[in-house]
Amino acid sequence: MRVRSRTPARIANLALGERASSLGMSVRDAERELDQVSYAGQLMDLTYADTHRFPAPSWVLPDFSAAASGGGMTYTPYRGDRTVRSAVAESVSAFLGVEVDPDTELILTPGSQAALFLGLSAVVEEGDLVALADPDYISDERIIRFLGGRVDHVPLIWDMPDREPRLDLDGLESALKAGASTILFSNPNNPTGAVLGRTTIREIARLAAEHDAIVIVDELYSRLVYDGRAFSHLIAEDGMRERCITLLGPSKTESMSGYRLGAAVGPRDVIDRMEDLQGVSVLRAPAYAQHVLTRWLSDDHDFVTHRIAEYQKLRDHTAETLNASGLVSVVPAQGTAYMFPDASAIGADTQTIAKALKHDAGLVVNPGYQFGPRGDRHFRICFAQEERAWDAAMDRMLSTLRGLQR
Amino acid sequence: MRVRSRTPARIANLALGERASSLGMSVRDAERELDQVSYAGQLMDLTYADTHRFPAPSWVLPDFSAAASGGGMTYTPYRGDRTVRSAVAESVSAFLGVEVDPDTELILTPGSQAALFLGLSAVVEEGDLVALADPDYISDERIIRFLGGRVDHVPLIWDMPDREPRLDLDGLESALKAGASTILFSNPNNPTGAVLGRTTIREIARLAAEHDAIVIVDELYSRLVYDGRAFSHLIAEDGMRERCITLLGPSKTESMSGYRLGAAVGPRDVIDRMEDLQGVSVLRAPAYAQHVLTRWLSDDHDFVTHRIAEYQKLRDHTAETLNASGLVSVVPAQGTAYMFPDASAIGADTQTIAKALKHDAGLVVNPGYQFGPRGDRHFRICFAQEERAWDAAMDRMLSTLRGLQR
Repeated sequence: MRVRSRTPARIANLALGERASSLGMSVRDAERELDQVSYAGQLMDLTYADTHRFPAPSWVLPDFSAAASGGGMTYTPYRGDRTVRSAVAESVSAFLGVEVDPDTELILTPGSQAALFLGLSAVVEEGDLVALADPDYISDERIIRFLGGRVDHVPLIWDMPDREPRLDLDGLESALKAGASTILFSNPNNPTGAVLGRTTIREIARLAAEHDAIVIVDELYSRLVYDGRAFSHLIAEDGMRERCITLLGPSKTESMSGYRLGAAVGPRDVIDRMEDLQGVSVLRAPAYAQHVLTRWLSDDHDFVTHRIAEYQKLRDHTAETLNASGLVSVVPAQGTAYMFPDASAIGADTQTIAKALKHDAGLVVNPGYQFGPRGDRHFRICFAQEERAWDAAMDRMLSTLRGLQR
Repeated sequence: MRVRSRTPARIANLALGERASSLGMSVRDAERELDQVSYAGQLMDLTYADTHRFPAPSWVLPDFSAAASGGGMTYTPYRGDRTVRSAVAESVSAFLGVEVDPDTELILTPGSQAALFLGLSAVVEEGDLVALADPDYISDERIIRFLGGRVDHVPLIWDMPDREPRLDLDGLESALKAGASTILFSNPNNPTGAVLGRTTIREIARLAAEHDAIVIVDELYSRLVYDGRAFSHLIAEDGMRERCITLLGPSKTESMSGYRLGAAVGPRDVIDRMEDLQGVSVLRAPAYAQHVLTRWLSDDHDFVTHRIAEYQKLRDHTAETLNASGLVSVVPAQGTAYMFPDASAIGADTQTIAKALKHDAGLVVNPGYQFGPRGDRHFRICFAQEERAWDAAMDRMLSTLRGLQR
């Protein structure tokens, strides 16, 4: 009894088999191998924040309940409830520094993940070349490959002591000259926590306009910036309104990932295409949850200020502890709740390190290859953890790394 | 200032421009035209159920709140929380009449819409031919076209008085002989409310096995069946386990659409592919909402029995009222909350009828072209409405149709 179910090419592309040469297997196979590693006790997952220690604002659940109890519609337009979009457009306009039209330039999505998937789908044609920061978010390259696009990796330079992080602008220009029609990067950067400053943002804008490219900038962590650092929104630069798609969401700083909410701001025609695809792929952001966005970016400034202070303390303590060990070196995050320790000194590859941290220390981390070829020798940790558990985890981490080094 | 943002082919395909010859424009353009029609008063939307009149079970919101208050995880595996999957696999096994493994054969999705999108993406390769029931759910053909697949429409015969509805099996066999590798249909059928009986289901199973095709059966409405009619799950037929993907969800009968939950049961390799795509397109079903599925299909039998009785009364009253008018003829739904009146006697096309119903009666209906070429001359209504508002709406509907006929 045959079963003619073969894997469609676009699904096979998700595995990133083209990394086989450096990794010895596809990225997806390497992840599956890591999934199989066992640990005798209770695993601690450092791939995300502890939302029990750092919960959502107190008004989120009551607002959800009011909507689910009859205050909200169950069937909203695909791009989101009209009243919610009005409120979000107002606060997003203030946040980005540009006027966002609630009806034409904004779409609410089920998480910023969906905004990323829909945004790329709306602009990347089969065969297109995309200039992608390296390292950058785990799903970027997979979505581009799902769409049949090709990737030109543009180095992110984040680990030069005493220099501001930046994109390699020569690399970006080469990619554009080679025909890249889309630029994609996260700012603040996931996985490194680097924040690109105004100078780099301006240069990206200039190159995008000069080479007539669309830019997708994933600003999911743009409220989670430390040391009072200024943050520059690409969309506010000259000439960017018609070619910039900005991805935002309350999943991280505000710990609302469990509600599946995100938002994208972009040119009218791009938002239309994103809605057309949303309408057949997932319909809409969860309808009752949409209503909690009404107070997002608006009534939560004290909450966010307090959260940044707590995370910043964890960042400082984490960077000090890891750097003092002499086993890894880490550039303190300027934003996000992630850091990306360089483990070159251990003398083991990132997969071996991730497997040992899971098997021996009970710690789940993201191996560096998930974020691009330049992620190698690194691993990603989320330091937004309960303080005492995190101290114990770092002890186990360093002890395991010490053991590997021998 | 150029902006090199053209519409990618797969997004353009969503518009179903190939219907231009019969419709005079793409399906999407016809929808946009309809969206522009104004009405002086408050619109009543008959494209979905009134979930204020027919709300979700009383335990849903408390269960959600408990999960969101710390009882549930924010970051679940992409295919869904392990504990929830265990509970769902148990109740789904009892419902379908086959043993479903919670770890390998089940995925929780953000609505059954996502299950449909992911399921098709997991089996349809660029250029593949899909045998699709006609009429059938509004998104089916769009998703297939997004994936670069082709559609062979197989007539659904639902409007023969005194005969059980069936798929045109000769048409299905021709499609399979022409190379169709996937069969897709909804049962109960959306938009007609027809329920395919055991004889037809068995024949579809036989043909699928003979021609080595995958079958996706959208059973979103399979709990909403009237007159005590028996319902046959395709997956329970011989040889179907390895080639049948069953889509289920609590959005309709149970009015939980606002929570964005769905489920798919299928062969292990297909579920793996669906999860790989879910992980990059939307991550997971909303995490806290997943927990309300624990009692779905398990503790809600009395609730569903009562709901079916209420809907059945509305069905009877609606069919009697419309058929007595002499303006339209309608086959009473055997399942779903939809009916698909035949408006041939009006002498106007479905777009003209939909526009008039919106502009003159304030009623939003789905014009028949949305469901396939054979939907023409029909429009779809959802009769799950508050009783008095529905009576008034039917008065306005018939009065508008009478006006059109003159």
